[in-house]
Amino acid sequence: MGYVDFVHPGYKPGKSDLICLFRITPAKGISMREASGRVASESSNGTWTDVSLHDERIVRLGAKAFETKGSFVKIAYPIGLFEPGNMAQLLSSFAGNVFGMKAVSGLRLEDVAWPKKIISSFMGPQFGIKGIRKIFRVYDRPLTATVPKPKVGMTSDEHAKTGYEAWMGGLDLLKDDENLSSQSFNKFDRRVEKSFRMRNLAEKQTGDVKSYLVNVSAETNEMLRRARLVKKIGGEYVMVDAITVGWSAVQTLRDECEDLGLAIHMHRAMHAAMDRNPMHGVSMLTLSAISRLVGVDQLHIGTVVGKLVSPKKEVTDIQDKMVSKKSKKILNQNWENTKPVLPVSSGGLHPGLVPDVMRIMGSDIVIQAGGGIHGHPDGTRAGATALLQSINAVTQGVSLADYAKSHIELRKSLEHWGHLKPV
Amino acid sequence: MGYVDFVHPGYKPGKSDLICLFRITPAKGISMREASGRVASESSNGTWTDVSLHDERIVRLGAKAFETKGSFVKIAYPIGLFEPGNMAQLLSSFAGNVFGMKAVSGLRLEDVAWPKKIISSFMGPQFGIKGIRKIFRVYDRPLTATVPKPKVGMTSDEHAKTGYEAWMGGLDLLKDDENLSSQSFNKFDRRVEKSFRMRNLAEKQTGDVKSYLVNVSAETNEMLRRARLVKKIGGEYVMVDAITVGWSAVQTLRDECEDLGLAIHMHRAMHAAMDRNPMHGVSMLTLSAISRLVGVDQLHIGTVVGKLVSPKKEVTDIQDKMVSKKSKKILNQNWENTKPVLPVSSGGLHPGLVPDVMRIMGSDIVIQAGGGIHGHPDGTRAGATALLQSINAVTQGVSLADYAKSHIELRKSLEHWGHLKPV
Repeated sequence: MGYVDFVHPGYKPGKSDLICLFRITPAKGISMREASGRVASESSNGTWTDVSLHDERIVRLGAKAFETKGSFVKIAYPIGLFEPGNMAQLLSSFAGNVFGMKAVSGLRLEDVAWPKKIISSFMGPQFGIKGIRKIFRVYDRPLTATVPKPKVGMTSDEHAKTGYEAWMGGLDLLKDDENLSSQSFNKFDRRVEKSFRMRNLAEKQTGDVKSYLVNVSAETNEMLRRARLVKKIGGEYVMVDAITVGWSAVQTLRDECEDLGLAIHMHRAMHAAMDRNPMHGVSMLTLSAISRLVGVDQLHIGTVVGKLVSPKKEVTDIQDKMVSKKSKKILNQNWENTKPVLPVSSGGLHPGLVPDVMRIMGSDIVIQAGGGIHGHPDGTRAGATALLQSINAVTQGVSLADYAKSHIELRKSLEHWGHLKPV
Repeated sequence: MGYVDFVHPGYKPGKSDLICLFRITPAKGISMREASGRVASESSNGTWTDVSLHDERIVRLGAKAFETKGSFVKIAYPIGLFEPGNMAQLLSSFAGNVFGMKAVSGLRLEDVAWPKKIISSFMGPQFGIKGIRKIFRVYDRPLTATVPKPKVGMTSDEHAKTGYEAWMGGLDLLKDDENLSSQSFNKFDRRVEKSFRMRNLAEKQTGDVKSYLVNVSAETNEMLRRARLVKKIGGEYVMVDAITVGWSAVQTLRDECEDLGLAIHMHRAMHAAMDRNPMHGVSMLTLSAISRLVGVDQLHIGTVVGKLVSPKKEVTDIQDKMVSKKSKKILNQNWENTKPVLPVSSGGLHPGLVPDVMRIMGSDIVIQAGGGIHGHPDGTRAGATALLQSINAVTQGVSLADYAKSHIELRKSLEHWGHLKPV
């Protein structure tokens, strides 16, 4: 079969087809039609030369490039090409060799519409937004989190003490940084033990539920051991760097967490290596859908306003993909019974930025600040309090400037980061 | 600490430092010096704002941008930042958030020089090139492999029969395609059983050693189950799509394969999503070093001459990284006792291209052809024979045109793909 056998303008995808939306930049001398056909061929069952076996049964499994608008092409894949429940296999199919083809000079997987049979083959989030809110009994405001800073270098004791200060200042969650796992200065087992001891103390003293997102990222078996330790010691969550551990390990962790009753917080470190270029790679929108399928409960999606790149439309599209029952960004997706994923806004945030974040993303989010809390002139506890005050101001419809008049921690925070002139 | 605290021109890295070579495109209005400092900061222990704790102990853990040449910057990371043996943690550090920073408009991790303590914390290849050659008792020519084509759609019986034809034609290895795992048309357990039955027959009939690269890519526990089945049924190898399953699962597989005595063949599907752009992402050179550390025995590195993008210098640099005891492309690397990885050349190859491939890559490789074998006018067995004939011609220093005079399978192959005019 040649590439033309994989181009079917006007084809109407069946309900069980998986649809990919690609942005294609054809190589020099290659037409859009040829490039689309070659991508569909390489990502399904074509090969570069004619081979003997190509009966009806084989032809039926071919992908079909069926709609082109400018540089955007939709390709439909028969579900028979895939092993349901195997994310590595799915990606090796439509997001594998195609990125290295000579027929394209750029190729970006913008979005995927997953058929029901694939959706139901993955576990999806165990808790979802409702389940997470139930843990904290907090229903009317964003949840809050902080990462100790400096991100690495603290001892287990310092880490736990920083957590205690943050919890006492009003935050719900302590979180490990993405590059903190088990280093000599702060070993995993010791950190978990110390931090949960302080967590228990903070819960007792405040009467509120507090928790800790423990980074278990490691080789799979060691990761599962760490997750079990978190459960044993009384934790509610594990955190995982999903891109650097990889989807097979995340699937395994999700499976284990079902038994353990632990929620999964996903950090996306390394995502921008493949999603930043608008003309090549895999979009964060696609990665967020994969995260929901595989079944994390929380996922970082950017801030629009902080230190990392994240345009507004991209962030709100991703949020729609994560939380809607029927998401419409960019391809239509019926999520069936898959629970939503709680979006986490983080990256250079401080209390002065909270109104922007909540205006853009609403209340069903986790607001996470690191330096924006620990860098407060009066330290971590005051910084945590300032973050809560900022959220309360927005929730009550009061401007930060007004609210700061009667809330000194917020005032100092706003002054410190230039959102309010010192009195 | 500000970004300037992470810029140390003239710093001499210590033996235990890990060195990253980045290519940086600073964002508009940002100097190279600032961009370098910000990358070093974000990938070690800096944060965007001043925080209270920054004593000598913390400062010591900071990364140091120490050498700039044009857009290339070397950054030294104190080993204390890392958890040895945890690839996810290493990547989340120096190949994590940095790709999404606003301070850069492009960032590419070109190469990493790994210190001895990190090298020795990973398992490395179990077999290496010598060990693989010993399996086959083949020491004087490239090993040979083929993937049944069409790549997906065949039944288990057809797949096994194609393998039999290829083995009988002279090939050493049958290989699953990267998107074939366990689909309804060809279930894993059945394929393994059928294929090894034909393998045993081909061994008996030829007196040669034959083997099969079985794609076990899946959720980690299922992947291990599949690996154990391969062992039980008499296999020598598993194959894994390392990028789509992820490094934590590959580490787990490597660990299991030590016990099972199985070699690991790595396919790199999806690598080009992050390594194709010369200005952003992670280079294949870096991915190949990671593969060697984690411990695969064979790895696809391109062809220079086939259907996928792979410039000559890139391929030979990667080969140096995979096989040398002291590799010098691009950063110097002493591999200590880590065994070499056997490079696999594949992607649109046919017998007519073998002289080019061997001239560029030598004999210590696996030459893999799919369509270039099954597309032979007389079918798979003749195609396999033609590939061996082509290798023999090169080994004996005879031109393909001359060799083809007395070898009809090669002649028909060369005629078919336009490397020889029909007589």
